[in-house]
Parts: sequence; structure tokens; C-alpha cells
Amino acid sequence: MRPSGRKTDQMRKVSFERNVSKHAEGSCLVKFGDTHVLCTASLEEKPPAWLRNSGKGWVTAEYGMLPRATGDRMRREAAAGKQGGRTQEIQRLIGRSLRAVVDLQALGERQITIDCDVIQADGGTRTASITGGFLALHDCLKWMEARSMVKVEKVLKDHVAAISCGIFAGQPVIDLDYLEDSSAETDANFVMTGKGGIVEIQGTAEAEPFSQDELMTLLGLARNGIAELVELQKQAIA
Amino acid sequence: MRPSGRKTDQMRKVSFERNVSKHAEGSCLVKFGDTHVLCTASLEEKPPAWLRNSGKGWVTAEYGMLPRATGDRMRREAAAGKQGGRTQEIQRLIGRSLRAVVDLQALGERQITIDCDVIQADGGTRTASITGGFLALHDCLKWMEARSMVKVEKVLKDHVAAISCGIFAGQPVIDLDYLEDSSAETDANFVMTGKGGIVEIQGTAEAEPFSQDELMTLLGLARNGIAELVELQKQAIA
Amino acid sequence: MRPSGRKTDQMRKVSFERNVSKHAEGSCLVKFGDTHVLCTASLEEKPPAWLRNSGKGWVTAEYGMLPRATGDRMRREAAAGKQGGRTQEIQRLIGRSLRAVVDLQALGERQITIDCDVIQADGGTRTASITGGFLALHDCLKWMEARSMVKVEKVLKDHVAAISCGIFAGQPVIDLDYLEDSSAETDANFVMTGKGGIVEIQGTAEAEPFSQDELMTLLGLARNGIAELVELQKQAIA
Amino acid sequence: MRPSGRKTDQMRKVSFERNVSKHAEGSCLVKFGDTHVLCTASLEEKPPAWLRNSGKGWVTAEYGMLPRATGDRMRREAAAGKQGGRTQEIQRLIGRSLRAVVDLQALGERQITIDCDVIQADGGTRTASITGGFLALHDCLKWMEARSMVKVEKVLKDHVAAISCGIFAGQPVIDLDYLEDSSAETDANFVMTGKGGIVEIQGTAEAEPFSQDELMTLLGLARNGIAELVELQKQAIA
Amino acid sequence: MRPSGRKTDQMRKVSFERNVSKHAEGSCLVKFGDTHVLCTASLEEKPPAWLRNSGKGWVTAEYGMLPRATGDRMRREAAAGKQGGRTQEIQRLIGRSLRAVVDLQALGERQITIDCDVIQADGGTRTASITGGFLALHDCLKWMEARSMVKVEKVLKDHVAAISCGIFAGQPVIDLDYLEDSSAETDANFVMTGKGGIVEIQGTAEAEPFSQDELMTLLGLARNGIAELVELQKQAIA
Amino acid sequence: MRPSGRKTDQMRKVSFERNVSKHAEGSCLVKFGDTHVLCTASLEEKPPAWLRNSGKGWVTAEYGMLPRATGDRMRREAAAGKQGGRTQEIQRLIGRSLRAVVDLQALGERQITIDCDVIQADGGTRTASITGGFLALHDCLKWMEARSMVKVEKVLKDHVAAISCGIFAGQPVIDLDYLEDSSAETDANFVMTGKGGIVEIQGTAEAEPFSQDELMTLLGLARNGIAELVELQKQAIA
Repeated sequence: MRPSGRKTDQMRKVSFERNVSKHAEGSCLVKFGDTHVLCTASLEEKPPAWLRNSGKGWVTAEYGMLPRATGDRMRREAAAGKQGGRTQEIQRLIGRSLRAVVDLQALGERQITIDCDVIQADGGTRTASITGGFLALHDCLKWMEARSMVKVEKVLKDHVAAISCGIFAGQPVIDLDYLEDSSAETDANFVMTGKGGIVEIQGTAEAEPFSQDELMTLLGLARNGIAELVELQKQAIA
Repeated sequence: MRPSGRKTDQMRKVSFERNVSKHAEGSCLVKFGDTHVLCTASLEEKPPAWLRNSGKGWVTAEYGMLPRATGDRMRREAAAGKQGGRTQEIQRLIGRSLRAVVDLQALGERQITIDCDVIQADGGTRTASITGGFLALHDCLKWMEARSMVKVEKVLKDHVAAISCGIFAGQPVIDLDYLEDSSAETDANFVMTGKGGIVEIQGTAEAEPFSQDELMTLLGLARNGIAELVELQKQAIA
Repeated sequence: MRPSGRKTDQMRKVSFERNVSKHAEGSCLVKFGDTHVLCTASLEEKPPAWLRNSGKGWVTAEYGMLPRATGDRMRREAAAGKQGGRTQEIQRLIGRSLRAVVDLQALGERQITIDCDVIQADGGTRTASITGGFLALHDCLKWMEARSMVKVEKVLKDHVAAISCGIFAGQPVIDLDYLEDSSAETDANFVMTGKGGIVEIQGTAEAEPFSQDELMTLLGLARNGIAELVELQKQAIA
Repeated sequence: MRPSGRKTDQMRKVSFERNVSKHAEGSCLVKFGDTHVLCTASLEEKPPAWLRNSGKGWVTAEYGMLPRATGDRMRREAAAGKQGGRTQEIQRLIGRSLRAVVDLQALGERQITIDCDVIQADGGTRTASITGGFLALHDCLKWMEARSMVKVEKVLKDHVAAISCGIFAGQPVIDLDYLEDSSAETDANFVMTGKGGIVEIQGTAEAEPFSQDELMTLLGLARNGIAELVELQKQAIA
Repeated sequence: MRPSGRKTDQMRKVSFERNVSKHAEGSCLVKFGDTHVLCTASLEEKPPAWLRNSGKGWVTAEYGMLPRATGDRMRREAAAGKQGGRTQEIQRLIGRSLRAVVDLQALGERQITIDCDVIQADGGTRTASITGGFLALHDCLKWMEARSMVKVEKVLKDHVAAISCGIFAGQPVIDLDYLEDSSAETDANFVMTGKGGIVEIQGTAEAEPFSQDELMTLLGLARNGIAELVELQKQAIA
Repeated sequence: MRPSGRKTDQMRKVSFERNVSKHAEGSCLVKFGDTHVLCTASLEEKPPAWLRNSGKGWVTAEYGMLPRATGDRMRREAAAGKQGGRTQEIQRLIGRSLRAVVDLQALGERQITIDCDVIQADGGTRTASITGGFLALHDCLKWMEARSMVKVEKVLKDHVAAISCGIFAGQPVIDLDYLEDSSAETDANFVMTGKGGIVEIQGTAEAEPFSQDELMTLLGLARNGIAELVELQKQAIA
């Protein structure tokens, strides 16, 4: 029995609110249950230095949590004077995941920065960030298309979304909330495209090592969940 | 004529949304027009080191802006590795302003941290932070009262709110938005209590020096605006 | 009765010693009683990056305290690895105040940095820095005029000076020393031009909020004090 | 055809040199071909602060590269003033992987730090670090056992080793060297125990998304390789 | 011929002004010609952590330069966020030099920090700092003796002073000013006690290597100069 | 009697292993007994910014210690966020020493960085770094000569090597190991060229001041030791 009463293959209620920012070229407030992440896309008309004169652009991501997004207040990273290892790990993952569906040549010599700021955390902030970040990116490209800068369908090769799965109380479950996440035996994050290709898989045994069969079960759960998320993305865009 | 079409003594639409955080002891999403600040209050059951065994507590504040809260994306302070001078100036101001209406002895040896994070900026982020931070603080004290830790009316001596006034296009106006703020001749921030006492006044001549008469006019505008804000705070709490 | 025996409207003995640096284009050791600040002006023949090709120059300020300028030794900011919030607040104030009397167009594409280093502190270091920094700036411009780079009277539109006033033991007093400052009920810093225009006003209620009447009284005290400081600046230059 | 001429399921020559440090409680110079990592284990007789009085100990890891371990000299992280995101990601992975086979209760309130310093890099530094770090950890526990502090077999529950697999030029291959790694379509790191349990799996699509079948193939390659590495660890210890 | 017209064995005019700080337990403004260093001694009634319960105290030093102490303005180290290598090298030298004449047991579990801040630089700032720092230290101990905390003659075993010598334009000269220093072939700093013992010697070939004979000549010059400095210290104290 | 049983004028066994790095243009693993330092030379085809268009190149050095190179594990400088004063002092010394035998004009507008990383420490890491760093530099120049970039004999004017001497238990001894170094009364480092010219001398009285005669004795010991080191360098290169 999951603390939330959800079934093992049941994700939390997922919602996307687009155009939440007056300033950003694209933006999306994504909610996976009580996990709320504000994603904005910011366009810059020049690529990072190492891509100058390459004809290619870049998509990158930054991630942050408001200090009281969590149950106990965490120290503000700006006050601490550096981004922690977890933050860097997550923002590198978000960037890689989004780039997996972008044709950087078609984007041209520009950079889009996806900022994912966790307003409230309840587990799964990185998967929500990727899933919502995709919409911010999409809307930024739409904004550019409206200005004849790119064709969205040339730049964006597919959808991309992410979900966590894990083994909680001996049961494989999808979309772990904080209560589950903090006592799961195994925790895995999956990033997949609309066509079902795997972009990233990160599985960690928190307690006992897990088996190949368990991995397959989690992957199966994830595949279904991500298909559902992609469907929701499509509805949000439509 | 103001860019927004407002009258010189007309503030933007102000709203307070309380209890927006699942985790914080008190929280408030305050909006002054397109300026949106999320304020949370976090209780810690020990005071800062320099107040140990003093019988007194402390109220402090931290301030941040999401990178794309502004028209152009600003560098994330956590990535830059330090909080800028403007950030530090503002968070010190918020802390001082809120402490002005708190009886630190009655609070007891605890610390309350008010985090003010600007979700979207359009001028007046510091005044919105103080005004909304008051409600987060109030609700945190209510949370404590419900647990018999304090009596709210013993700790909270009065309301406190803040507004900016300035001289724009030769006219004294209240509650400057970004367009006005960036070209105002004079810019002043006022913090006042519910009883009308002045807690803080910061006036700066951006172009030409201003006169005592002009200062008085701005103070008069501010007095009315703050009275209105306090009224709105009271309605929000009621 | 003030701890120093001064009358309520009596400033400390103020002195300016010019040309104290062998290297700087302008320099002034300013003393407000036991508060001693060494101000130097350093000319750089290019403006900050954001003013390139604008035809305009810039005046900026940096502020520091020697570790044992104070009663207790303070940690050296260079060793701490950052400038504190108070330091940044003060150096921003000094810069704004001096720029208020400078025609940046007439200065041309150059930068003048005013370094204000507190050799000994006894309250009022920021007001002494502004008042003495003006002379360092003036002398730097004179140095430039001697080399046909600018006309001083074109660049420098007026004098600027600053003084603190506050309510100490229930009495409005001018030019608080450390003993007064640390127990004042209200503390305000005023920056004004030679013509009496207000450049900056920063008033803070340290204990109880203050009233508009009190503010007016402090402003009146400040006006007289600053007039006196400007007179002393003129004598120093003459 | 692999650049090195290796077969697709052929790892590079792996060697372990134990007791290479005069000072460390355990140490191992591990070589995966031209990738050389010096692993040392340092015992501290107190756990991290958050484990005081828990009866438990901790195993942590730090990772670094000598500036010219790579083809082009990289900036020294100590000079840059911070550890990069990649470094933090890797050292967190090493720590998690080793803890997966340690009974922290049986270790007692102590901390063992595994330093993995890359002397020369040619791809696979993180997998070499985990595989060699296990031996440094083992030898540190042996050192402790010799002093009657712990029983090795109580603390160390199993072997742990790691290998990378990837899809290079359309072929699934094991133990990628730098040339392969920098142009692989898919890159995955596997950490497994002696009994074959999965501790960690991190797969990334560098170009096109990969399929579940490809993942299974890589996992199969990894399983064989890790079994071989564990065998080599056992010979090294014997 | 030296740029200053001095003879090869002629130091610049040296002066000591004691008690220049209202706050510090000991202070001295030392001048070696145009090199001016403000030295303060700050007493703290506890030793550094690693000397707790050892019965011993500590003497340490910190060094800084005002940004415009030099011909060109140097970046403020507090703004740069760290102390440079040269600063650290010099402050370590000052600390070692002063400790060489202090009985740390007799000092007791306390720490004295000598801050040496260069107000104006013209070569030889480290030697002036050591020579003047000795007087600040002495006066701090006198201050303590007046409060029956120590006996000066028990703590202070001897005088200590320092001078630079070098080979300039082929000639061995003493007490190099900036002009000489920046083009000297060899540059050496000597720290010696009142009895003539060598505490520290640091010689560097800036251009060609130097010979043992040249070293002896420089040492001879330094011995005479330091004897003179010690004599001046004695007069200053008397 | 020395702890190691060596004679007072007997250095530890010194060895050089060249070409230890697959990547670096020059490299050398130098051992002075149990002190092992890996020196690599990295060529960059542009000089530092301040030498652009000067026709001159630069040789610089960086120094680091692996955390467990020492008896107790030291904090990793990359994790601490800065290089300590000792590190900076040493790397500046290595750079100056090597530049003393390099004709920077003949090198041309390039930079060679010598990284000296201490794999294991037992006293004398800086002297081993200089002595081994010379070989890395030499081999880098040979590498360049093979590509017709320079003539080694034009760039490299002489050999350079370094040794420590000190007074231990009342006896002047050469090449102190850690045990001797940590309780020596006097500690001096000498850097000399193949022709016997002095490049650098740094002598410190750790306890009592030392005399000119003692300095001469140490210099004599060093002269012999360095002659021997230069001989070994020549054999290594031959």
C-alpha cells in the first residue's frame, strides 16, 4: 500500500500551465502532485563561446530549489556561494535530456536556457523539470517561429518526458513522492522520447542491489507512464 | 500620463494568497500588479549563535530573484557564487522592516526566516516583499500560537507595509512599475506601521536632486498607499 | 547630554588633508572627530564595458575598513573571501552620491574610482567617505584639467556632502559618534548638494518608528550641517 | 573495428597494485589500459556530524584529475576555486557504489574516505575508480582488522566493480577508451556486486535514443566484464 | 648611481609613529621613505583552536595593501574574493619573523594579530611591516603588562627587524625603493634579531644567478642596516 | 644520528623516471626517497595575456598534493575552494626557479606549464619538484625541437636543481625528510644552477636564530648536493 493510496502503476495528477511568465519566450508551471516546478525558456541570440562559427546552437538548463520548497528549510545556494553536487547533477541531466530531441544545427547559432525552479518539492523534481521544461522549450521555439527564426518541426525532433520508478516496500511503483522516495529500496529515473526511445536511465540501489528482472519491471512501468506524459504534453500544446 | 494609465496616486492591483506552501509554517504569494513574490516563513527552534541564552529570538530575511523574473535573463546568483550588493541590500531592509513590529523577547529563543523569492518582477519587488512577508510572518506566528508556543498579539506589535513613490515625468506618483522606475528622476521607498510610524525611508535622486517639498509630497502619497495596504492585510487575515 | 559633551546641533571637528597619496590622481584624508577615512581617486582611461562607445564615463566607489579600525578587530574581508552586505551597501551609496554631481558626458569615456578606506572608525564612516571622497574626486578632475583632459566646472556640477542625524536619548542630534550610533532610536543619513538639493536620504527606526515631524527635525539639522561641510570643502579647495 | 583492435566484448588489460602509499591505511593503483587511478583509503576515528551517536559509520569518496591527465591540460580545480559538476557527479557515484557493499553499522562510528585521483586518463576513469577503490577500502578494513577494530567479513558484504559499455560505430562494446567514448552513440556505466546484483546503472543516449534491446545487450556485456573484474579483485586480494 | 641619489649603504629615512590607533592594544605607523605601513596589534583572549589547553599562545600577522597604495590601482582583494599568493607569502613571513622573538609559553593562551596595512607603497613593504610590526607587538605587550597579564621581558626575547638588499645596476645596495626593486638583478630580504641572529633570509635572482660572495656582501649590508633599525626601535620605545 | 641513519651530507636515493605520461609533452616522476612527485610539462601555443606581442614566452608552475600524500589526510584544495598560502608560495618558487635558466625570448610566444603533483610526501617536496620539473621542461623542449619549434640549447641556458639543508639536533644536514623537517631548528632551501650560481635561497629559523657561519655550512652542503643532482639529471637525459 502506497502512503498516498495510489496504485503501483498510478502517477500523481500531472498538470501543465503554459505562459505563466510575462517575460520568458516560453514558460510552463508543471505539477506532479505536490511537486511544482516553474520552467522558463530564455533565448539568447548567440551560442556559447565554443560553438561560435559552428552553425550550431545550444540548449542548456539550470536548476534550483527555493529554500523552503522542502519540509525543512535548506540553505540558499546563492548564500552558500555555490551550487551543490545534486543541483549540478540534475541540471546536467535536464540539459542532456532536452538536447536529445533538438536538432542543434536547425536551431542555428543561438542558445536557449531552460531554468527549472522548484517552487514546492515532494519527490520527482528532476522528472517534472524535464517534462515541463520540454513545454517551455517548445513554446520558445513557437515564439521564434512566429518571428520567422526557425521552423519548430525542424528543430524539435520528438517529445521527451521523464518519470521515476522504484521499489517501495517490496513493490515496483511509479512516480515516487517524497515519502516513498526517502525509503525506497531502489530508485530509477527514466527519460524517453515520444517514440519510446530511451534517452537516459539512472538506477540506484539505495539498500539491496536489484536484479535485471526488477530493472525490466521498472522500465515497463516507466514506458507506460512516459507515454501518458507525452499524451498530456500533446494535449497541452494542442 | 503614466505608461499603465494609472492615476498618480493609484497603486497597482494588490493581492495576497495565503497558505501557498505545503511545507512552510507561514506563506503568502503577494502580487503588486505584475510583480509576484513568494514569501515563506520558516521557524527554527534556536536563535542565531549571538543570541543564545539572551531570552530573545530573531527574525531575518533572504531575498532572491528567479533568473527569468526579469525582462532579460539575469545570471543565477547560485551559479555566480555570490549574492550581489543589491540582493544583500534588499534582504537587510526586509529583515529590519519586519523586526520593527516584532517583540523579540516575546518571540523567545527562536528564529524565523522570511524567504522572499521574486517569481516575476515589474518594479517594487522590495516593497511587495515586505508587505507580503508580513503576512507570512503573521501566519507563522499563528501556527505557533496553535501549538501554544507564543501569543500572536504579544509578539506582533503592529502591521508593517511598504510602498515606493517617485517623481516620474515631473509628477509624483505611487507604486512605480518597471517602466516608470527605470526612468524616474527620484525614487523613494517607504516602510510604515499600521499606526503610521515611519520604519524606514530611502530616497534617491536618480537624476536631479530633489527638494524637501517633493519629499513631503512623496511621503504623503506613501502614507495613503500604506494605509490601504495595511487595510488589505487586515482583510486577508480576517 | 551627549557622551562627547557636544551640543545637539554640533558636529565633530571636521578636517580635510589633501594630496596625502604619492600615487593617486586625487586624495584626501578626511576626519570627522575620531573617524578617519583615506579617500583616493584613481583615473582609468577607459569606461566600464557597458559604457563603451556611449561617449559617457563613470564614477564608482569602493569602501573598506582596516580590520582594527573598530573597537573589536573585525575579520579582514579579503581573508573572508567576500565583501559583506554592509560594505556593498555603503560603497553603492558613495558611488551614487558622487555621480549625482558629475556630468558623465563631460567626463568622457573614462572611469574614476574613489576608494574610501576607513583607517579608524567612530561612527559616520559613510558620511565622512562621501564628504571626503568629493575632494578626492575634485582633485582628480583638477589633475585632469592640468593635462587638458576636462574642464572641472563642466564635469562637477555642484558640491556634495553627507551627515548623519539621529534621535539619541530622546533628542535629535547631528553627526552621531559610535557610542550614540549604537544606542540611537533612529538613525538617518542625508546626502545633499551645495545648493541644498537632496541626493539621498536613508532613515531607519532602530527601536520605535519615528514620525514625520521627527524626520523634518533631522532633515533641518542635516541641512545646516551639510551647509557647514560644503563651506569647509570650499575652504579646503580654495 | 575498435580503434584499439579489441574485440567487442574484450576489456582492456586490468591491473591492481596494492600498498602503493606509505601513509594510507589502504591503497591501490588501478589500471584499465592507459587509464591509471590512484585510490587511497583514509580512516578517521569519527563519523560525519550527522551520524554522531547513531552507532553507524560512513564511507565517502572524493575524485580528482591531475591537470595533465588528459590530452589537453585542464584547469586545476583547486585554482579554479571549485569542483566542477562532472567531478561531483563522479565522486557521489563512487561513494554510493562502495557503500552498497558496506554494513555501516558493523563499521561503527568512523569514516573512511576513498580518494580517487586520476594520474592518467583514457576513458573509464569512474569505473576504474570504483573497481580500484574497492581494493583500497578492503585493505583499509584489513588494516583495521589487524588492530581488532572490525571484522572484515562483517563490514564488507560483497565485492563491487564497475565497467562502461556503449554503442560505438553501431556495435555494442565493453570498456570504452577515450577515442570510443568521445564518439559513442550510447554510453552506459554499470556497477554490480560479486553476486551479480545491480548497484547502479547510468545510460545516456549521446546521439540517437537507444532501445530496450540495446540496453539488455549492454547489460549482458557488463555482467560478464564485471564478473571478470571481481575475479581479478579476488586474485589481487588472495 | 641610485635613482634617489642615496649611497649604496644608505637606507631611506625611517620613522615610527606609535599609538596611532584609538582602538588597538598596540599600533605603529612605520615609514621607510615613501613606503608607509600601518601596523596594529589586536589581543584576543583565546588562542587558535589547535593550541587550546597547550599553555601556549600565538602571534600571527595579516597583510594588505590599499588599492591605490601603488602607482597603478590594484584590484581590492576583498572584491576579488581572495588574497593573492604574494599577500599570503608576505603575511606568513611577518608572522614567522615576529614569533622568532616571542616566548609563546610566556604569552599564555592568547593570540595577538598584527595587521600590516600598506597605506602607500614604494618598495620594501614587507621589511617595513616586520620592523614596524615589532613595535605594535611590543606596545600590545606593554598594554598587557600594565594590566598584569604578562611581563614584557619574559615574552619578548629580543628585537627583530628586516631590510631588503639587492644588486642594482651591478652594485650591491640596501633598502631598495620601487624603482630599484623593479629592475634589480638580485633581490634579498633579511630578518635579524637585535643580537644579530638570522631569522629569515630570502634571496632571489631576478636575472642572472648570484654568487656566494655577492650573498655575503648583501648580508653584510643588511647586518648594518638592521642594527641601525634596531637602534631606532629602541629610541622609539625609550 | 639522523632518524634514517644517513650521514649528515648524504642525500636520499634520488631517481628520475621520464616519459611517464601518455599525454604531456614532457614528464618526469622524481623520487627523493619516499617523496614522490609527478612533474608534467604542458605546452600552450600562446603566451599569457600580458606577454602578447612581446616576442617572449613564459614558464609557469602549479603545485598540488594528493589528499593522502601525507601522514594525516589533508583537505583537498579543490573541495576547500582555494589554494592555501603554502601551495601558492611553493608554486611561485618553482616557476621562478625554472625561469632562471630559460631564455624567454628564445622560447617565443608560448607558455609551458609545469604541474608538480605530490603523489607521496616525506619532506622536500618543493626541492624535488624543481629538480624533477627541470627534466619535464627539458623533455618538453626536446619535443618542440623535434618539431622544429625551438633549439633546446638556445632556450635552456643551464641546469637547475634544488635541495633543502637544515640544522637538526644541532647538526647541519642535507635533504631533510619529514621527521627531521618537523623538528629542525633551521630549515633552508637552495636552488642553484649547473654552473653553481645561486637562484634562490630561503632560510628560516624555526627555533633559535642562526648565524652567518651556520648559513655558510648549509650553503656548502647544498652546493655539493646540487652538483650531485645536476649530475643525475645529466645521466637521466643522456
